[in-house]
Amino acid sequence: MKIRKAFTLIESGPVVLVTTNDRKKNNVMTISWTMVMDFTPLFAITTGPWNYSFAALRKTKECVISIPTVDMLDKVIGLGTCSGSDTDKFEKFMLTPVKGKNVKAPLIKECLANIECKVIDIVKKHNIVVLEGVAAYFDNSHKEKRTVHAVGDGTFIVDGRKINRKKLMRSKIPAGL
Amino acid sequence: MKIRKAFTLIESGPVVLVTTNDRKKNNVMTISWTMVMDFTPLFAITTGPWNYSFAALRKTKECVISIPTVDMLDKVIGLGTCSGSDTDKFEKFMLTPVKGKNVKAPLIKECLANIECKVIDIVKKHNIVVLEGVAAYFDNSHKEKRTVHAVGDGTFIVDGRKINRKKLMRSKIPAGL
Repeated sequence: MKIRKAFTLIESGPVVLVTTNDRKKNNVMTISWTMVMDFTPLFAITTGPWNYSFAALRKTKECVISIPTVDMLDKVIGLGTCSGSDTDKFEKFMLTPVKGKNVKAPLIKECLANIECKVIDIVKKHNIVVLEGVAAYFDNSHKEKRTVHAVGDGTFIVDGRKINRKKLMRSKIPAGL
Repeated sequence: MKIRKAFTLIESGPVVLVTTNDRKKNNVMTISWTMVMDFTPLFAITTGPWNYSFAALRKTKECVISIPTVDMLDKVIGLGTCSGSDTDKFEKFMLTPVKGKNVKAPLIKECLANIECKVIDIVKKHNIVVLEGVAAYFDNSHKEKRTVHAVGDGTFIVDGRKINRKKLMRSKIPAGL
């Protein structure tokens, strides 16, 4: 997938997984607090020292954003309710790490899409980590393509119908998307 | 609606409208680049001088985040593809401004929900505006409750099925939500 299209994997607001590798082992966390920041592949996530993954993010300045589908929801919740400090989450949740091209953080084979990212800034005051996508992958062979959106109260919304408004939106969308 | 629940209006990533009042007139813009930053009503939006509303946001330090539903999609796109610099968008799109309690920016009567917000910081380097919700409203009488999520390429995803995982998520959700 062209890296300049990577923001379209995140803009709708799906729950995502963020993988890291601290040079000792792989880890992964679940995050719903994400934001696209530009049509370039620039994203923000809110996280901080309360997440075990944050230390690896800060140290390695790398991660992968993986997009799970609705059939993975209970796994996604499981990943988000235990800690990498005492759990090998890839093993416990039977996720397959796949080597990326530009970062040591692993892609997740079971996910619909993966974006290799570099940490380009951390806004400490607000616990915002600014990421730049450097490579993106979309698994067209993945049968289930619906992602899932956290409401924040323990409920989730599954992707429904798709509506095409490309003509009306032409003035706002970069050419070629 | 309790202000502490306001983040649940945004966390799933719907397209939102942001209203401002620059002490001369009301304005409103469409935004998809939003992020919840805490279980408190703390949100980020990405915007900057390229949006006409940004000057009002910076000057008044106030806005309202309004959540439209899918039946308003073409209006939402219209609002997002013209500028308040030469258009009275409330008039053109027949939106009804409603007086808020804490801010001069108007609520939008036709929307499913509204959140009065104060601008508590602007991270200039990244064009991130940090907002704190101070009052929230949810229109239970609104028949259509499905929101819509921008993919970023001119297509949109409508809310589909809802899944309840409150039990599994209990350890992550503040009490009472």
